[in-house]
Amino acid sequence: MNSVSETLCLGEEYTRQLIESVIPFWMSHSIDTEHCGFLTCLDRTGKVFDTEKYTWLQARQVWMLSALHHRLEPMERNDAWITAAKSGVDFLLDHARNNNGDWYYALDQTGKPLMQPFSIFSDAFVAMALSEYARATSDERCKELAATTYNRFVLKLANPKGIYSKIVPGSRPLKSLSLRMIHLNLLIELDWMLEKQTCLDRLEECVSEVLSSFVAEDAQVLYENAPLDGRFMDCAEGRMINPGHGLETLWMVIAAARILGNQQYIATATALVLSTIEYGWDREFDGIFYRQDIKSKPLYQIEWDQKMWWGHAEAMIALAMSYTHTHDPRFLSWMTRLDEYISKHYRDDEHGEWFGYLNRQGQRILDIKGGRWKGCYHVPRALLFVAEESKAW
Amino acid sequence: MNSVSETLCLGEEYTRQLIESVIPFWMSHSIDTEHCGFLTCLDRTGKVFDTEKYTWLQARQVWMLSALHHRLEPMERNDAWITAAKSGVDFLLDHARNNNGDWYYALDQTGKPLMQPFSIFSDAFVAMALSEYARATSDERCKELAATTYNRFVLKLANPKGIYSKIVPGSRPLKSLSLRMIHLNLLIELDWMLEKQTCLDRLEECVSEVLSSFVAEDAQVLYENAPLDGRFMDCAEGRMINPGHGLETLWMVIAAARILGNQQYIATATALVLSTIEYGWDREFDGIFYRQDIKSKPLYQIEWDQKMWWGHAEAMIALAMSYTHTHDPRFLSWMTRLDEYISKHYRDDEHGEWFGYLNRQGQRILDIKGGRWKGCYHVPRALLFVAEESKAW
Repeated sequence: MNSVSETLCLGEEYTRQLIESVIPFWMSHSIDTEHCGFLTCLDRTGKVFDTEKYTWLQARQVWMLSALHHRLEPMERNDAWITAAKSGVDFLLDHARNNNGDWYYALDQTGKPLMQPFSIFSDAFVAMALSEYARATSDERCKELAATTYNRFVLKLANPKGIYSKIVPGSRPLKSLSLRMIHLNLLIELDWMLEKQTCLDRLEECVSEVLSSFVAEDAQVLYENAPLDGRFMDCAEGRMINPGHGLETLWMVIAAARILGNQQYIATATALVLSTIEYGWDREFDGIFYRQDIKSKPLYQIEWDQKMWWGHAEAMIALAMSYTHTHDPRFLSWMTRLDEYISKHYRDDEHGEWFGYLNRQGQRILDIKGGRWKGCYHVPRALLFVAEESKAW
Repeated sequence: MNSVSETLCLGEEYTRQLIESVIPFWMSHSIDTEHCGFLTCLDRTGKVFDTEKYTWLQARQVWMLSALHHRLEPMERNDAWITAAKSGVDFLLDHARNNNGDWYYALDQTGKPLMQPFSIFSDAFVAMALSEYARATSDERCKELAATTYNRFVLKLANPKGIYSKIVPGSRPLKSLSLRMIHLNLLIELDWMLEKQTCLDRLEECVSEVLSSFVAEDAQVLYENAPLDGRFMDCAEGRMINPGHGLETLWMVIAAARILGNQQYIATATALVLSTIEYGWDREFDGIFYRQDIKSKPLYQIEWDQKMWWGHAEAMIALAMSYTHTHDPRFLSWMTRLDEYISKHYRDDEHGEWFGYLNRQGQRILDIKGGRWKGCYHVPRALLFVAEESKAW
């Protein structure tokens, strides 16, 4: 069991894990030297078991490797990382964009499109990836294309699924947290290259919308979907809580509030981080639930009680940022508890990276290190960001 | 533990469960007396927790109640059932069909559409429902609309997801078992009203396609997706096995072979039933896996090891039909084993119906009796069909 003093030194340990275990796993196993880009369907040991390339994961890995390049000290980083990032950029630019400027959802190993560009999150992750690569390398073409892609993202916000939407228009007046979250993330990431006032205005708009529309009053957690007219909608979508997603959004609210210089937003968000981890934590088996219902009604999602790696990684960032601002020992206790859970269940000291998928009891459902949704992203991002936060503790 | 002689009497027990526990559960809790149709989101005790109406489930309940009306002896049946079926028919005809003749996927309680008609399975279940209701009541309008809807189903087969398809055309030359399965089901159900030779030709075509294209050679189980050109496709979709789905398809192959009078098909299908239950059974915790990979590669589906009620219900039908034809004691042993699992984990003697969702270890993940996918269908159908089969044992 960790002590609080050990938690205060978590940054060093996380930097070590990042550089010695997690990034080496992806660098050793995921780089496609033949066709560029990344192979992300990797079993426990890193062996490739499928070769499709998902744009979300290609872009996220470009972002991650580029972020490491420009955020770590030169003596900590490895030039092979930015070379690998370039390989991902090449794959995206050569294959993943269709003639309309939209990004295919999935391609085969050689770059032949498999799935149509139905996801606005592809635009978001590509924009972030190209922005961060451009920031790391001063590549002007990537910077321009990041801006273009971000602008298409903004245009799509009103109807994000476009022709692929299955909802009858107007039938369920709800707005989704995930779009506000990803827009916040984009603005934080593209802050360096966007027109200053536009960026500040949009950050302000996103943060105030999250904090005014999405907070469930009694529980003080974020709804996954908020009613357009402010009146609670008593259906599964309207009642849904995804605590890991809420915590991910909340650390982005804190990051946005730092740019905005708004201490009130930081105070509100850190209080919500605390109520969310308390709400989302499984008191019986530990770990953070995947889905909850604000009225404790039955859930439909058969995976509701599973423990997903990404929610735990995002929770760690949210707690670390909250501690930076408050020095409230409750955040330190939660970090200690969460790090214990992560060390016991997710970390794989034998082969590197984390496992991803546990049942409620903490047993592994899948042994894979990467797949169609898990890639080089949540884990290294959390390790990097927590290490950065810890410098202020 | 059941004995084999008890298994031979399963028909009586299943008829009792059907009439005294399962159908009363749905009749007591799901009938919407105000807006017609059925409320299917029911908790363990039958309490309604959501009011959306899903066309699949509306149609399946109409089919089930109509089938009970015309397949049970008059002294066994209750006239309230066909009255309830009519309420479902009224809801479907009044609200669920759009101007093109397509069926919305979901509506609200009053009949306002929520989700677009993106699913060809809606056409299939509605056609079956209207056919069975027409057979039970001699309703000519329903018979005509069943035929119209079946014809639209056939027209859609070449491009079942239509504008909602996310696959880049031609990128993954696979064909899906589920479409063959549902077409078989439709032909078996609409046999009484379709032009005789057309029906026989299509039954022959479906059965021979399933048995020639979808059988994994070594394991003797059915693929969920078969390659169009016959060459094994080594991707997750190409490797996927869903044993419950395979068993559901196989009993439909047997039912089709009965219509066709083809003993060879019956022999092939019963052999496949045996190899499939052996392949899909979890030797460690019992029950049938939801998904498997023919090459034992990692799965993506986080629910792969869950134990779903419907696969177990369908397996029971497949085993019972196989025993009818073969009198092979191995089918009896499997039925005994499966019934034990069902009795222990799914049946709820306290409140009626079955639970639906178990984890690998057999613990309940959800307590609901009905929702967006579970309704008045797989359980009563299995009880009814097994009881019918047992008369020949």
